[in-house]
Amino acid sequence: MSQVFLYDTTLRDGTQREDISLSVDDKLIIAKRLGDFGFHYIEGGWPGSNPKDAEFFARAAKLELGGAKLAAFGRTRQKNKSCEEDSNLEALLAAKTPVVTMVGKSSDYHVKLVLAASLEENLAMIRDSVAYMKQNGREVMFDAEHFFDGFLANKDYALASLRAATEAGADWLVLCETNGGKLPWEVEEIVREVRQHIPTPLGVHCHNDTGCGVANSLAAVRGGCTQVQGTINGYGERVGNANLTTIIPNLQLKMDRKVVKAEQLRELTSLAQYVAEVVNLKHYNHAPYIGRSAFAHKGGIHVAAMLKAADTYQHIDPQLVGNETRSVVSELSGRGNIQFHAKSLGIDLNNDDAQRVLGHIKHLEHEGFTFEAAEASVELMLHRLRSDYVQPFELIDYFVITEKRQSRGLLSEATVKVKVNGETKFVAAEGNGPVNALSTALRSALAGVYPVLTTVRLIDYKVRILDSANGTSAQIRVLITFQGGGHVWTTVGASANIIEASWRALSDSLEYALVKLN
Amino acid sequence: MSQVFLYDTTLRDGTQREDISLSVDDKLIIAKRLGDFGFHYIEGGWPGSNPKDAEFFARAAKLELGGAKLAAFGRTRQKNKSCEEDSNLEALLAAKTPVVTMVGKSSDYHVKLVLAASLEENLAMIRDSVAYMKQNGREVMFDAEHFFDGFLANKDYALASLRAATEAGADWLVLCETNGGKLPWEVEEIVREVRQHIPTPLGVHCHNDTGCGVANSLAAVRGGCTQVQGTINGYGERVGNANLTTIIPNLQLKMDRKVVKAEQLRELTSLAQYVAEVVNLKHYNHAPYIGRSAFAHKGGIHVAAMLKAADTYQHIDPQLVGNETRSVVSELSGRGNIQFHAKSLGIDLNNDDAQRVLGHIKHLEHEGFTFEAAEASVELMLHRLRSDYVQPFELIDYFVITEKRQSRGLLSEATVKVKVNGETKFVAAEGNGPVNALSTALRSALAGVYPVLTTVRLIDYKVRILDSANGTSAQIRVLITFQGGGHVWTTVGASANIIEASWRALSDSLEYALVKLN
Repeated sequence: MSQVFLYDTTLRDGTQREDISLSVDDKLIIAKRLGDFGFHYIEGGWPGSNPKDAEFFARAAKLELGGAKLAAFGRTRQKNKSCEEDSNLEALLAAKTPVVTMVGKSSDYHVKLVLAASLEENLAMIRDSVAYMKQNGREVMFDAEHFFDGFLANKDYALASLRAATEAGADWLVLCETNGGKLPWEVEEIVREVRQHIPTPLGVHCHNDTGCGVANSLAAVRGGCTQVQGTINGYGERVGNANLTTIIPNLQLKMDRKVVKAEQLRELTSLAQYVAEVVNLKHYNHAPYIGRSAFAHKGGIHVAAMLKAADTYQHIDPQLVGNETRSVVSELSGRGNIQFHAKSLGIDLNNDDAQRVLGHIKHLEHEGFTFEAAEASVELMLHRLRSDYVQPFELIDYFVITEKRQSRGLLSEATVKVKVNGETKFVAAEGNGPVNALSTALRSALAGVYPVLTTVRLIDYKVRILDSANGTSAQIRVLITFQGGGHVWTTVGASANIIEASWRALSDSLEYALVKLN
Repeated sequence: MSQVFLYDTTLRDGTQREDISLSVDDKLIIAKRLGDFGFHYIEGGWPGSNPKDAEFFARAAKLELGGAKLAAFGRTRQKNKSCEEDSNLEALLAAKTPVVTMVGKSSDYHVKLVLAASLEENLAMIRDSVAYMKQNGREVMFDAEHFFDGFLANKDYALASLRAATEAGADWLVLCETNGGKLPWEVEEIVREVRQHIPTPLGVHCHNDTGCGVANSLAAVRGGCTQVQGTINGYGERVGNANLTTIIPNLQLKMDRKVVKAEQLRELTSLAQYVAEVVNLKHYNHAPYIGRSAFAHKGGIHVAAMLKAADTYQHIDPQLVGNETRSVVSELSGRGNIQFHAKSLGIDLNNDDAQRVLGHIKHLEHEGFTFEAAEASVELMLHRLRSDYVQPFELIDYFVITEKRQSRGLLSEATVKVKVNGETKFVAAEGNGPVNALSTALRSALAGVYPVLTTVRLIDYKVRILDSANGTSAQIRVLITFQGGGHVWTTVGASANIIEASWRALSDSLEYALVKLN
């Protein structure tokens, strides 16, 4: 079993997708999770292109990323400039990452047309940039842009670009299928030929424009690549990058390559869902391996056969990737999980209680809740089972208005009535919006009894509609993230009413603060 | 250029997808459109399994389907029954289609475990059923279920099942990759081997469980298959069937096979959107070739290079499949971009106006708007610059409450006062939540003057907080997507107040509907 190295570029190339825009905080928590999963390389961004990515690298230096190495992305030096004069290379060094990845041109067409440089000048740009980064102690990857198109048009020049990088000391040569137009056998054949000419370890970077992003990446591994670049859920420009959430199980389960540990692979579905939540996109139900429908069976014949043997209509055991068969009800699958989770919180849960929590979770998931990205809600559920747990407050009523009038402008006001410590508190507050007004009212009602609540603050708020068939009257899911006392936590609420969904997430977050910080 | 025949099973296997359920009328209009496009075979359903499919065939007989032949689907006869006694075969004949497709077992494991029949009995079932349909004058396809798994487990038996069908006169043998677990080189090698043993024309039927449904189908064509089965947009059970909307252009544009006429291929994007609308699913933006984002460019470097030559970052000319290049409008885009965009809407924008729009976009993006995913908002901005543009309505006041009281439960109510056609309308409505209540009130205020608004519906609603440092009092961005009259559009609103942000996106979406649909 030969090792294949994973290189994730969700945080750089993935954000080229039209509807993805990540904050620095988003990028940090995704990087952390990728490291935990077992990625070998995590590309964090392009520090020379925007200040947000530069900030990311400054803060990422403190992250614990498992065995993963952080990579900063840039391009080879500009023509007619030395490396020392090039601000892009300066920003790359300033990112202080162990790995630097630089894209350069391998296609003579692009050198002449886009770069407007001589073929020799481009080779010098590659050679100088790689050597400069090696002198500065970096592990260097050379991303050979448009490599496959370039190879077909002018093989000698494409290979010369790789040799330039190799001679300057590049650790990896990454063959980029930039426009995504190739088919698997073309990719495999070209990689095989490159392998015969060039000794440096090879990586591959594919896009999905022919619907073959996954197959092309696998074909490249057959041809001799030992590094695969891609993104979680295949996010990326146009139709997306090669989808690592499909490639990883294919390599490990179908092609017998060593990629991650078996227990890491079982986190794959959870990882894919987590990243989807953070980038605020609906998790694609029909994604291979990790989609909610990937092992869902509708056909009666199939379900009947699967009662005889699960492998009759499933290509793998879904548990290998942390997914599950959907037509078969298996409440037992989660109980041990819940007990394990409770134990880590110091709560001893018997089988009956664990079963009860599981039933509650299933009921809420049916209502539209999701607990993948809202572990604080699960923890709270477990705490509420403790015999010594006292509900810190209880809602009686809330009332919130928002109005916009030509005479008065825009305003939001709320009243909240809660029972706390046996007393009823009735408080009014205004806010920038209805959720802010409710939050201010609730916290002001509780602050006298629980002063710690003045130290926490809401740092993120995300809303998703769940059943798009019914528009605004469909189920709405709200995720709220709070921060305080050195902790960050997320709770979930769901309802057809956005205010009620927000209220449920909000009140849980404050209750969680009392459990955690008091 | 050798011909590859297309066999569409959207109407049968495609409906196995969890969230698809079609009426007979739906199926008839899809069949008509598939025939117009140039499909060679259209599988309409399984008449033996439900009365809806039987009704479909009764009515489909009158359809004009271009050159397409209609196929009815069923299975080989049951064990211990003659063909004449088998109600499934009776229903197949009653469908009166020129083509009959019957699935049978090729895997010895499935014969023994699922069918509980002897290996010889299964071969007799295949032989008898095919011969019976040939006697009745049908073109007969034998779908060899689990063929690839069966071949790997017991090659002789899998080939024996094909020989049984061939000897009985089958016109086509369709190799089914039923569980979807194979990779392209496995498929190609097995097809090649079958081709050496069996002279009958071969088809292939793949699923996408390894993310290789497209690549596997193409590999089968390389191996010797001359018929490809699949569905529009890859609809189907689990993660779906092989996606014909990707396979067709790959075969025709990349593999130089004859599939459909060039002018038919230019209808591909429109076909895919049409079917998505009929099955009531959102058209997947990131689908290869036919997705809205398939040729959309966000990166500044890519856009700049494409101004020099479009093929620098595009693998084909999108017009070949009826799609188009889009450069994503954002604060980074220049004046030329805006003018180009206006021109495509038939609006002639002078430099000053273009500069003004750009300034407005930059100002709004600074406030938290984003236009990448909200082109309808940009279009509306451009229309408002037209000297003949009349604002269709004007907001005076809105007022919305949400309350939850122990005595009354949860409710949301809104009032909206707008000026429309010189008249002031003041309307109240309730809703499942505040946005739904506002939307209902606004539409009811406008419906008398603009009845077209009763035909549009909200299909997606997304909320994102923008400056996470300030929590609920930070800027909130809302994206709202509507659908109606064959169009789908998204508008954006931003405000510190979620209700106001929703209002801005909502009222823009309805104004856009009036521009587009009136």
